[in-house]
Amino acid sequence: MRKGERTKEQIIRQAAVLFNRKGYAGAAISDVMAATGLEKGGIYRHFDSKDQLALAAFEHALELVNGRYLAAIRSSRHAVDRLTSIVEAFSQLQREVPIPGGCPIMNTAIDSDDGHPRLRARAQQALADWHRMLTNVVQRGLARGEIRPGVEPATVATRMIAQMEGGLMMDRLLAGAGHLERTTQGLRRWIEEMAADRKSPAEA
Amino acid sequence: MRKGERTKEQIIRQAAVLFNRKGYAGAAISDVMAATGLEKGGIYRHFDSKDQLALAAFEHALELVNGRYLAAIRSSRHAVDRLTSIVEAFSQLQREVPIPGGCPIMNTAIDSDDGHPRLRARAQQALADWHRMLTNVVQRGLARGEIRPGVEPATVATRMIAQMEGGLMMDRLLAGAGHLERTTQGLRRWIEEMAADRKSPAEA
Repeated sequence: MRKGERTKEQIIRQAAVLFNRKGYAGAAISDVMAATGLEKGGIYRHFDSKDQLALAAFEHALELVNGRYLAAIRSSRHAVDRLTSIVEAFSQLQREVPIPGGCPIMNTAIDSDDGHPRLRARAQQALADWHRMLTNVVQRGLARGEIRPGVEPATVATRMIAQMEGGLMMDRLLAGAGHLERTTQGLRRWIEEMAADRKSPAEA
Repeated sequence: MRKGERTKEQIIRQAAVLFNRKGYAGAAISDVMAATGLEKGGIYRHFDSKDQLALAAFEHALELVNGRYLAAIRSSRHAVDRLTSIVEAFSQLQREVPIPGGCPIMNTAIDSDDGHPRLRARAQQALADWHRMLTNVVQRGLARGEIRPGVEPATVATRMIAQMEGGLMMDRLLAGAGHLERTTQGLRRWIEEMAADRKSPAEA
């Protein structure tokens, strides 16, 4: 990799952390300068605008989290295990913090209402993609007889994302109150109960 | 009410909308000037700083939403009906929009990580209060035999808030996708199933 490309990637990595923590409006180019040790000109050599840098930073953050979810899906074959693995991956992401400051999609949803329409459009697509990924896992599980008939794929996807994101939001405001852990445990039980081909926890 | 007090209240009402929609970092005093038609001096006659105005605006937004939740609790006596009424009130708040831009607590949670520690502390207290309010409804329901033994009050409160806030976040990013409606329906069924003294939906 050429030095210019390395510098560009380093700016994106640092900016991804800053934008995720401070939001699009809250993060200034001076923050990126401080984090990278570069002058303003050194940053704008690689990006036309703060908008363009924010988009690249969001894309980077998204790749990191999506990589985890894809790995979670591939780690097992049964739909119920796949859904459980995604819940675990989400929870794990908050502990390991490759991108500190919570979920990039949620942060961008809250933060970019007005400021940056292209960033908002990208976050909308990312949420729709995530929802579709979970919906597909449930649909396949139904087709394979792994998930009980009558389970609504899109509803499962919505309720999973809502509980993960909602629990994370609560944990971020009240650290140590164990909210994400509670929603994660509740989701694990709820997902197990969808299995068509296993004993339900009540029967086990 | 004296004219000065009326002006102050008008600034707070307009600022509550602006801060809720744009966030603490995103909303500028120039936005408050544009919304109220006042000069900067006319605003700072009533508030020492943007920080103080933001706190007053959050307090106002919180009173509006908390008023709805208290009314929801008082509207019925049975714990299960009370919990259902709170879910309805949350959902209704997003349609009527007395404070456009979503839930003030969630917005402040995401937005005020770094910028305004006192505002963040106030939002933490508001979330803890809301969680306690829901926990108390479940505890009373258990004591009165309205809710099945074994139900965990704090877990119910966490999962309710997480699903309402998470569904709202998804709806705000993807308007019209029906995410909040899905989490609201799921919550309604889940709450009904907690009832100790009614037929479960499966038996009904």
